[in-house]
Amino acid sequence: MKTQQELTDYINEAIASIPYPQQPAGLYEPIAYTLSSGGKRLRPTLLLSVMEALGGKASDAVNQAMGIEMYHNFTLVHDDVMDNADLRRGRPTVVHKWGRDTAILSGDAMLTMATQLMARCPADKLPDVMDVFNRTAMEVYEGQQYDMEFEQRVDVSVEEYMNMIRLKTSVLLAGACEIGAVMAGAPAEVRRAFYDYGVSLGLAFQLRDDYLDTYGDPLIFGKEIGGDIVNGKKTWLLITARSEDSDGALSRIMAANPAPQEKIEAVREIYDALNLPRRITRLIEQYTDNAVRVLDTVSLQPGWKDYFTSLALSLNDRAL
Amino acid sequence: MKTQQELTDYINEAIASIPYPQQPAGLYEPIAYTLSSGGKRLRPTLLLSVMEALGGKASDAVNQAMGIEMYHNFTLVHDDVMDNADLRRGRPTVVHKWGRDTAILSGDAMLTMATQLMARCPADKLPDVMDVFNRTAMEVYEGQQYDMEFEQRVDVSVEEYMNMIRLKTSVLLAGACEIGAVMAGAPAEVRRAFYDYGVSLGLAFQLRDDYLDTYGDPLIFGKEIGGDIVNGKKTWLLITARSEDSDGALSRIMAANPAPQEKIEAVREIYDALNLPRRITRLIEQYTDNAVRVLDTVSLQPGWKDYFTSLALSLNDRAL
Repeated sequence: MKTQQELTDYINEAIASIPYPQQPAGLYEPIAYTLSSGGKRLRPTLLLSVMEALGGKASDAVNQAMGIEMYHNFTLVHDDVMDNADLRRGRPTVVHKWGRDTAILSGDAMLTMATQLMARCPADKLPDVMDVFNRTAMEVYEGQQYDMEFEQRVDVSVEEYMNMIRLKTSVLLAGACEIGAVMAGAPAEVRRAFYDYGVSLGLAFQLRDDYLDTYGDPLIFGKEIGGDIVNGKKTWLLITARSEDSDGALSRIMAANPAPQEKIEAVREIYDALNLPRRITRLIEQYTDNAVRVLDTVSLQPGWKDYFTSLALSLNDRAL
Repeated sequence: MKTQQELTDYINEAIASIPYPQQPAGLYEPIAYTLSSGGKRLRPTLLLSVMEALGGKASDAVNQAMGIEMYHNFTLVHDDVMDNADLRRGRPTVVHKWGRDTAILSGDAMLTMATQLMARCPADKLPDVMDVFNRTAMEVYEGQQYDMEFEQRVDVSVEEYMNMIRLKTSVLLAGACEIGAVMAGAPAEVRRAFYDYGVSLGLAFQLRDDYLDTYGDPLIFGKEIGGDIVNGKKTWLLITARSEDSDGALSRIMAANPAPQEKIEAVREIYDALNLPRRITRLIEQYTDNAVRVLDTVSLQPGWKDYFTSLALSLNDRAL
């Protein structure tokens, strides 16, 4: 059985060996640049681990693994245009380095290259691979659209928020898992189980991110704490607190918009009074439990059940 | 045998019946808006006519026809962002009406929807359809990239220009033709012949556009004459004239940049002295001849040889 590190090294090597055309360099350089900037390679590693766990060989799904990572990176390149973001993974973004038009066009090319990589598979698997990939991609756009719309609204419900992060973040993890199962030739119920695993993993992952931004250790989290509060970002914490803001204390703070440190402390006090740190922690545990339990029905190669369990639980460990 | 008008009506009805999801409306409304704005439907009609000419039924390739039109419209939505364009087909562009972020995201969704439509075909044809579609898409981005780069250069050669318009304009017509042939179950040499037909048609089409912008009848052309000259746009005419500008007369005019009407007349005088109207007319005739001749080798259903011949020659008639 392969370790997570071995799979990550394998996908990193494969990505480093993608043969980009020489010309036009202005189109392909930003793509190679984006793909070379690292990241955790969570999605392709998931895809490959499902493939191996179900008895397939990672090398027989490496194109699909590269495809899902290419797709993920395409969304980042276009998101950075929309956010006017200057930095990503500690390096200048494509939009910052090459400008808007190159970021749009290279992003488009990445989406088509992702589809090309996905399509490099045995003909009998192609319809299912295309089906899962394209459906997943559409859901990601829907999630991004809701995310943009929510920024303009004050009445977003917790249900709407959970649906948004499911679409924007979780379905791509779920799609990666399901494509791994398709490539392994798994039946529908196994595909479904791995899809559900990915959804739960993704929800836990995003909620953990919400938690850490307010309550994390800045040394471990890797960025300053409280940015979401300062920016009024609609996270699970803020949305839940708003819906329970019976005395209007939160509204008054948000309206007054005090200096950053003051705002962080005041809002955190309200979160604490509502017991939100404990409640979001429990919610994350529920999703990681869901993720682990859904795989109980699936028969895996030796060692892999533990692998997927540790992966889910590691979200708890590191987070809380 | 179906007429061009019947095929156009058929594809228009199919496009009008695309069932967009209700939510999120902010994502899907701009897509429906773009697709409803008309246009000549040249690419899907070509795809369907090749299908019928080779003995297939248009209804068996209607998803691919919608897919190619969806793809074409996706490129227009993103091009309009890059060009900061306000109007397209007499209506506000998506970027003008909904803003940059919506135009980027809805465009992305259109590219994935185009791929979904393409993939709706019998499993035995799927690998070839995906292959032609994705390869064509990559070439379109390359053409767009060259077009953007050429705007910053003064030394573009005629060969580079012809390669750019082949990529940016012709290959999508060629891809539409080839996918029609794939859907009809045609062998490689027939696919190739129709691909070449589409390339020649596209080159003739673009050169005719270059000609008409400088020498057309504004009533027939539908926009003011001379815009390319005023904007210094690198067309076949300007690039050829520049490469033959031995006394530097053209350079001096472009550098002096006089008032629009004066500039148009001065540049047109140089074009005339170099016999460019006659030379580009001959070039267009050559490409339409190429288009017609390449189909000589292909056995078509009754009436269709005339159909494709008229379509190619109509570019001459209307143009010159």
